[in-house]
Amino acid sequence: MTQSSPGTILISTDEASLPAWVGVFERLAPDRRVVTGRSADHDGDIEYAVVWSQSPGLLIGLPNLKAVFSIGAGVDHVLADESLPDVPVVRVVADDLTNRMGEFVVWQVLDQFRQGPAYRDLQRQATWKWLPQTAADAVTVGIMGLGVLGQDAARKLAMIGFKLAGWSRTAKSVEGVATYAGEDGLGPFLGASDIVVVLLPLTPATSGILNYELFEKFRRSTMPSGPVLINAGRGGLQVETDIIRALDEGLLGSASLDVFETEPLPAESPLWRHPKVTVTPHAGGNSEPEALVPLMIAQMEDHDRGRPLRNLVDRAAGY
Amino acid sequence: MTQSSPGTILISTDEASLPAWVGVFERLAPDRRVVTGRSADHDGDIEYAVVWSQSPGLLIGLPNLKAVFSIGAGVDHVLADESLPDVPVVRVVADDLTNRMGEFVVWQVLDQFRQGPAYRDLQRQATWKWLPQTAADAVTVGIMGLGVLGQDAARKLAMIGFKLAGWSRTAKSVEGVATYAGEDGLGPFLGASDIVVVLLPLTPATSGILNYELFEKFRRSTMPSGPVLINAGRGGLQVETDIIRALDEGLLGSASLDVFETEPLPAESPLWRHPKVTVTPHAGGNSEPEALVPLMIAQMEDHDRGRPLRNLVDRAAGY
Repeated sequence: MTQSSPGTILISTDEASLPAWVGVFERLAPDRRVVTGRSADHDGDIEYAVVWSQSPGLLIGLPNLKAVFSIGAGVDHVLADESLPDVPVVRVVADDLTNRMGEFVVWQVLDQFRQGPAYRDLQRQATWKWLPQTAADAVTVGIMGLGVLGQDAARKLAMIGFKLAGWSRTAKSVEGVATYAGEDGLGPFLGASDIVVVLLPLTPATSGILNYELFEKFRRSTMPSGPVLINAGRGGLQVETDIIRALDEGLLGSASLDVFETEPLPAESPLWRHPKVTVTPHAGGNSEPEALVPLMIAQMEDHDRGRPLRNLVDRAAGY
Repeated sequence: MTQSSPGTILISTDEASLPAWVGVFERLAPDRRVVTGRSADHDGDIEYAVVWSQSPGLLIGLPNLKAVFSIGAGVDHVLADESLPDVPVVRVVADDLTNRMGEFVVWQVLDQFRQGPAYRDLQRQATWKWLPQTAADAVTVGIMGLGVLGQDAARKLAMIGFKLAGWSRTAKSVEGVATYAGEDGLGPFLGASDIVVVLLPLTPATSGILNYELFEKFRRSTMPSGPVLINAGRGGLQVETDIIRALDEGLLGSASLDVFETEPLPAESPLWRHPKVTVTPHAGGNSEPEALVPLMIAQMEDHDRGRPLRNLVDRAAGY
């Protein structure tokens, strides 16, 4: 490595999308070497790692590693590696990903709110029948998690006409959103929400938070079929046996789940076939290399020039 | 009838919703008599008619009829009565109805754009598979009909991130929308649109406009499954045999239809069972008496005081 050549990038992600990430980095940062694994030959040159669910230990002992970039808005998959070196971890904050997630949330909220599942049942039966149709401004969508994604979803849902509530670990103020915070705020927040959208990070504090005890606190007044749960965050937030129990007992009216305890969702999971569950395959917001790589390269170049990294993860908080 | 008593209201709509309309009028205009049919006793007192698909002739020869209020944004059902007296016809322009229609359009656009039908097929097969996901700003939603409903839908879709095109009979300028007008503009408009949303009024000029020849002009580049048709206007706009042919030949990728040539859609219609068709039962935007009656009463009171009626129908244009 000469003084003037910029550092090597180590990329680690799922096999299917790895070639696309490598290709876009090679095209947009032609002066940098891109590698996809460890080797005594180049380990000393690696300055940046770009990872999704890296193998534990992958990043140990890289002498010149400066930062780790997460592929995806959540970083639990990065932090799960207990041997992760003590370097800055950068999350993705990109309009492209934010917009995809926001549109996914609006899609699922509208599909539940406008009774998509029930209308599709009626179509299968060739039955023409109107279902009750609540006005959007009589319904409160509660968003758990008020980061960049939660705030974008709130803004779009407000524009459709819904009332908004929001819950976060620490108190936040978001225009047009009735906000609640911390453990004490959870009950009042859930009691005020008809449709609950989950965009929380997965941390030790949020793991399994979507459980039976929580569903008992949901409001059940406005939606014809009962409260709705939409999890577009992480599968580790939810207890799937509790979701099924709550649906079967009527504590929950229906659920849209994009994430699961085990992904891919095993074919034998009853969620696939539950009449009150919409399953999507962690498709809320794809991380598109074309959209995200330019932002990562810009941060690497800034950092090389001594400027601070942005969108850093608080490793103590876990997000 | 004394000088001071306000005029009687004649209400005519489908049997199922008639009691609700009568009830809300009686509650909100207690000084007015409300009748639901003709009678020599009260015909002379009727000043306003509030109708949905009235029986032809219902309104003939009412000596003091001042105006007809349509239940619903479209007025084709009112004008279809060739014996309709030559009095002003008032359409519904109400935020409540506009919002319901806008949210319906956003719902159906997102469901098609995010490949809802394909993901539901995958769920039925318990198959975990990502489908290609285009960015919203690479897709143009074209709106046919740029009245109050079309403009509201455009604003909401733009906020989600779509590019917008619009077509109307006469040239209009709408912020953020590439507009086209008249017969000459139709080809270029369709060539620029990936998803076509129809919110046109049904008039002699638009009857059957959604036909095979039109579908041949659709753009077919961006949506993975091909161009999408969403008709939330009137069933008389569409030629259903042509829609099926275009879907089967791949000219159209998929369709969301809320309105039909015959309503209720007959159980034997192949549309119910077509794998590329989403059927909803004219549920785009319900006309809710609670939301609309206050606006009608306000107009009646204004008119009684000599002020002009608003949202008048141009009977020559048919909308």
